[in-house]
Amino acid sequence: MSVAYLDNSATTRVCRAAADKAYAVMTEVYGNPSSLHTMGFRAEQEMTVARAAVGKLIGAPPERLFFTSGGTEANNLAILGWAEAHTHGGRHIVTTAVEHSSVSAACDKLEKQGYTVTRLIPAADGTIAAEQIVEACRPDTGLVAVMLVNNETGARFPLEKAVAGIRRRSPQAHIHGDAVQAAGKIPVQAQRWGVDSLAASAHKIHGPKGCGVLYLRKEARVSPRNLGGKQESGLRCGTEAVPLIAAFGAAAERVPPFPQQLARYDALRQRLIDGLRDCEGVVFHLPAGGVPYIIHLSAIGLRSETVLHFLAQREVYVSSGSACSKGAKSPVLTAMGLPAAQIDSALRVSLSQDNTEDDIDRFVETLREAMSVIARR
Amino acid sequence: MSVAYLDNSATTRVCRAAADKAYAVMTEVYGNPSSLHTMGFRAEQEMTVARAAVGKLIGAPPERLFFTSGGTEANNLAILGWAEAHTHGGRHIVTTAVEHSSVSAACDKLEKQGYTVTRLIPAADGTIAAEQIVEACRPDTGLVAVMLVNNETGARFPLEKAVAGIRRRSPQAHIHGDAVQAAGKIPVQAQRWGVDSLAASAHKIHGPKGCGVLYLRKEARVSPRNLGGKQESGLRCGTEAVPLIAAFGAAAERVPPFPQQLARYDALRQRLIDGLRDCEGVVFHLPAGGVPYIIHLSAIGLRSETVLHFLAQREVYVSSGSACSKGAKSPVLTAMGLPAAQIDSALRVSLSQDNTEDDIDRFVETLREAMSVIARR
Repeated sequence: MSVAYLDNSATTRVCRAAADKAYAVMTEVYGNPSSLHTMGFRAEQEMTVARAAVGKLIGAPPERLFFTSGGTEANNLAILGWAEAHTHGGRHIVTTAVEHSSVSAACDKLEKQGYTVTRLIPAADGTIAAEQIVEACRPDTGLVAVMLVNNETGARFPLEKAVAGIRRRSPQAHIHGDAVQAAGKIPVQAQRWGVDSLAASAHKIHGPKGCGVLYLRKEARVSPRNLGGKQESGLRCGTEAVPLIAAFGAAAERVPPFPQQLARYDALRQRLIDGLRDCEGVVFHLPAGGVPYIIHLSAIGLRSETVLHFLAQREVYVSSGSACSKGAKSPVLTAMGLPAAQIDSALRVSLSQDNTEDDIDRFVETLREAMSVIARR
Repeated sequence: MSVAYLDNSATTRVCRAAADKAYAVMTEVYGNPSSLHTMGFRAEQEMTVARAAVGKLIGAPPERLFFTSGGTEANNLAILGWAEAHTHGGRHIVTTAVEHSSVSAACDKLEKQGYTVTRLIPAADGTIAAEQIVEACRPDTGLVAVMLVNNETGARFPLEKAVAGIRRRSPQAHIHGDAVQAAGKIPVQAQRWGVDSLAASAHKIHGPKGCGVLYLRKEARVSPRNLGGKQESGLRCGTEAVPLIAAFGAAAERVPPFPQQLARYDALRQRLIDGLRDCEGVVFHLPAGGVPYIIHLSAIGLRSETVLHFLAQREVYVSSGSACSKGAKSPVLTAMGLPAAQIDSALRVSLSQDNTEDDIDRFVETLREAMSVIARR
């Protein structure tokens, strides 16, 4: 039985081009980029190529990219590194109540240190408006940290539209965008948007796990958190993960044009919705303007875990929410004010460019089967 | 012309078994270990296998290992994580003046925050005795951070022999060993030695760059520095770099028995020394009891960079010191009190199990050629 992998917001299969690149670097271009000889230069060259590709992906000049071990480290570096670099700056933080745990945990930590944190609550459909972000800003706001796409509902938070308003109200604010669920799937223009920093991850776009990137605007100040050699201009020390970085670049180069991606995701999402339209008990949570590659629904009356298990036995893989929460009650859905019956039965279907109509049909059929079999128990 | 790669303390070529494992995980076992479905479990299983292999490598129970993005992060986590977990503990730190920059930079940072740091100076041959470490300890010593093998000279610092003495004099001390240049090449017994933490890196033992590990004794307390999901028991959050971790495990499993390694390194080192014995101007710095896989010498009168370039053009790769210092004057050799003429002409030859007699002969011949050609200019 073929695998219908529909959990691409948790992680993706590494594409052939990226895996081949990682392999070649591991076994052939294995020098240390800091070495002063040819083997080191060759490794450095691989990083240069990757830096250009990833820069293009997120609309950032290559020299302002700092590779990290993943999205979590990139978010932590932006937030905790900002705090360390601005000990005498504004002590108010604006974020949302539905951020990824790497952002929320970092903000929680700063709150314990005396910072004031405003956590925006999304509307019932999961959306947050640009005005909402701007209105939360104060003269003493030092940091605004907002995700571009929510990892559970697919809601699109228009941070880029709030930048001008934030700058007006909070001249000293560092604006950080978590683009982990956005980069490579919708257009991201870090520099043009004018944010101070932006985080992305390789393994969400068919690159390998263990590699992420932080874009940092030239004017932005962030203290390093990994101290040691002077790699990545001293902002992120430690021997660079060259095979992963090169593979991240290869995956970035392979990203299809956005209109083509969008058309594909739109069609697959519509097929899924149509396939379950007459299904009693299935409720879709589709945020207005949300991205089409994350489809959030509840199969009321069936516990998520039970359904996941049923689907997985048939090689259909989805999730009950973000992978990182590992079964804990979703803070995102709770913040949205969803009824308990919908939270307990929530399912997230998340797409990549590898998914086919057949994958969608497999999910639809297997969920229908689950509803009939499990309900009868 | 074949490559004579003799810069293995900077980094190693990833072995076939490790590269193949990384490739298979990237393209087949690509689930997120935090996912609640079978794809997640399979990824988790790869980590379990790797954890056992790496645990065996450093003599630590698998459940006390925490994978990081490398040796630098592991050292930072131990030192800065210790400080954060012990805000009311002893404020005196014992370390050496010749640590890797990831240890020295972390200690420097704490010194700026008000900690007192004692930096042990090695003897003229690069050695530091266990008694020297113990004698530096005070009742208010909260941290002892010492490398097991110096990355430039190959001196063996016997931290394990100092543990009992440290505990006597400094009951509250956290004892951290940087085993990056030791693990996989000499026997390391983290648990038996009784240290509180120990760091190792994959890419020094034919695993990939971007992966390291911190062993943490059950009784030791260290605060997490990467905040987010609850990966690695919450001590090191962020989606695990499964391909790298699995490859680290594969590389660890491939480590040859230590007596066999030692015999090979001893023979290669002797061949190198014999080959240059009659060479005027060549001075070896061989610390008493040092490891045989790092051979440090000076070719007096020739600048290191010039020689490196000459050798690299002939596909012979060595270094002038640690890769991480990237051409800066070695603080290690400076601390040892070597004359400037020896520091400026220092060369480090570092071996792996892949090296052959032919590699050594290539180095000897090419260095001889360099000495004759460059001297004539």
